[in-house]
Amino acid sequence: MAFEEMWRDLSPVGRSASSGGYFRQPWTSAEGELRAWFAEECAARGLVVETDGIGNQVAWWGDGDLPGVLTGSHLDSVLDGGAYDGPLGVVSALAAIDTLRARGVQPGRPIGVGVFVEEEGSRFGRACLGSRLVAGATTWEEARELRDRAGVFLADAVAAAGLDPSAGLLSLDRVGTFVELHVEQGRDLVDRDVPVGLASEIWPHGRWRFDFAGQANHAGTTRMEDRHDPMLTYAMTALAANKQARLAEQRATFGRIAVEPNGTNAVPSLVTAWLDARASSNAALADMVAAIERQAEDRAGRDGTALVVTPESVSGSVAFDADLATRLAGLGGWPVIPTQAGHDAGILSDAGIPTAMVFVRNPTGVSHSPDERAETADCLAGVEALADVLAELTRSGNPA
Amino acid sequence: MAFEEMWRDLSPVGRSASSGGYFRQPWTSAEGELRAWFAEECAARGLVVETDGIGNQVAWWGDGDLPGVLTGSHLDSVLDGGAYDGPLGVVSALAAIDTLRARGVQPGRPIGVGVFVEEEGSRFGRACLGSRLVAGATTWEEARELRDRAGVFLADAVAAAGLDPSAGLLSLDRVGTFVELHVEQGRDLVDRDVPVGLASEIWPHGRWRFDFAGQANHAGTTRMEDRHDPMLTYAMTALAANKQARLAEQRATFGRIAVEPNGTNAVPSLVTAWLDARASSNAALADMVAAIERQAEDRAGRDGTALVVTPESVSGSVAFDADLATRLAGLGGWPVIPTQAGHDAGILSDAGIPTAMVFVRNPTGVSHSPDERAETADCLAGVEALADVLAELTRSGNPA
Repeated sequence: MAFEEMWRDLSPVGRSASSGGYFRQPWTSAEGELRAWFAEECAARGLVVETDGIGNQVAWWGDGDLPGVLTGSHLDSVLDGGAYDGPLGVVSALAAIDTLRARGVQPGRPIGVGVFVEEEGSRFGRACLGSRLVAGATTWEEARELRDRAGVFLADAVAAAGLDPSAGLLSLDRVGTFVELHVEQGRDLVDRDVPVGLASEIWPHGRWRFDFAGQANHAGTTRMEDRHDPMLTYAMTALAANKQARLAEQRATFGRIAVEPNGTNAVPSLVTAWLDARASSNAALADMVAAIERQAEDRAGRDGTALVVTPESVSGSVAFDADLATRLAGLGGWPVIPTQAGHDAGILSDAGIPTAMVFVRNPTGVSHSPDERAETADCLAGVEALADVLAELTRSGNPA
Repeated sequence: MAFEEMWRDLSPVGRSASSGGYFRQPWTSAEGELRAWFAEECAARGLVVETDGIGNQVAWWGDGDLPGVLTGSHLDSVLDGGAYDGPLGVVSALAAIDTLRARGVQPGRPIGVGVFVEEEGSRFGRACLGSRLVAGATTWEEARELRDRAGVFLADAVAAAGLDPSAGLLSLDRVGTFVELHVEQGRDLVDRDVPVGLASEIWPHGRWRFDFAGQANHAGTTRMEDRHDPMLTYAMTALAANKQARLAEQRATFGRIAVEPNGTNAVPSLVTAWLDARASSNAALADMVAAIERQAEDRAGRDGTALVVTPESVSGSVAFDADLATRLAGLGGWPVIPTQAGHDAGILSDAGIPTAMVFVRNPTGVSHSPDERAETADCLAGVEALADVLAELTRSGNPA
């Protein structure tokens, strides 16, 4: 059937032969293949794809004056990521349209299928960049100055991918409701023994860059007591972040680091590391990050190093439309659960668009990893659930 | 004078405009410039340079059957290194020949000036690679399989630099004695208030690669207690190494790290870090590294990560010829001091060649850093001292 064919077509794109994981960074050839694949799938369904100046895509089924229902997700991945995070929502959106058509449904409002670029922030460090730009949460003037790890400006990366930023961005004017289906990135559904759930909220979360500056020196001849070694300040900070998150039952991770000069026989001059932190409330997040920063500052004082902390992207808590979640959950008796992962759905919700998320069970909870997976039966249950949701939201006379 | 002219000529080669430090990695264009510069300086002195199949160079002043005295050092640098570490020994060797000629000295034995490649191990991770190969401490069959950080094999890097490894290596058959002048990488001479010293020994030292393997996962959704985060194991190990070295008054440093996938929102799957460790005796070094490894293993057990430790290059203690050091120190009343830094002189000494080192005062002790420096007056004192040493070793009837 169509779902499995689409899944098979996507399977090799951007896949690492060594790890089995995916490298689908935005404005690369892998992502270009995915964009072309999406346009072909839409064309095969008689839908016309609109691609905006930075690569966001949308295809609408049906016209009319009523506000429409947008569904979809993203196709990019983290570095060495899994197959499901993002693509499952796009493939399921297309398959749900097939299902609605097979059921003979004539939607009373337009249904759009959308793909947002750079959701993971894996290249330019800004999560949900495509939806942020579309929603006006980030300006192009600010975004164009972002650089990737090779120093390439965003504007140049976009142009190199054959896109023209001056062509403008997608409009959200037609979007009355947004529904994003996503593989669960945790073990809530597997613990409940159900294949599908609805989202209640996204935890507040953000990224902070920690620059630890010390003094480069010879690793062999410099007495330990004469050093200003920023690696030590970093190491203590990474352990402190873990401890703070465990104590508060929140999340804090240092998963990315860059060291200068990064030579075996040199005490580093600079260690830059990125903190990913999430918490169940805005206050809890601020408190945890402040505690980590305080411990890092204390250690920097002892190490004779200097610390600068820069917030790179911080998102407050997102409460999805509670009435909408309750109404949609009632369609299948699905549970309503929170998530600690950021999503384009959070950006659109913050922009005032009633938004819902459908989660598909993840048997291990593992995500952002080549080991991420979902059972095909659960994916197909997700497609049916999404079709039910879309049918409900577009039934004539129903509120979108 | 010649010393300052040579120094000025070298000053821009491989220098970073941003940091002011040097990037003179082996078999790069910067190192090619240095090799050409050395050949020109030798030619200007009527000396013929022999360049071997991997880029080691030597030029002899004088023929004859008696064993000769080789002096010199290296021209490569660590990443973002200083100007003096290596080049000071080569420039001083050439300047010392000028001084001997100006004094009208007719050496009773040949004097060679040599340059060894990849002393720092900054590209292929094996310190003193050029001298190790020449001395037979490492075989070409083993070395050719080494790869740099971009995955380039040593053999390909050498060939890309226009060299032909099959042309063979320098012979040490003519070398009766080796003398290396080097900037001090510590504060012994500045504390003694003298510009020049002789070396007694090199501390045992080595590099160990620590591979910490965990499980990639989502940094936001994975509960802290469900993680197998190798960054935590690494961080504790880096702090443990520092503590062990402080307790034992030895040296241990983690200055280089590589993280997979190195994404902000992913718990890493793999952290690889390199330990540089040095100690005053072979037993103290082995004890310290074992203690660090034991603490790392304990923490890996708690983190649910796996650790593999691989020694990459380990050098036992080098005691330079004590009679030679005493005899040469007597020429100027110079102190005889140990060093914690590895040198080509250690490799040649281990190969059974009587070897001495002359150190030049470093006013701050800083090395392997753009901030490394030496006063010109001290450098000129070093040239005079080296000329005295060479005159003594090549005086007719004296033992070399």
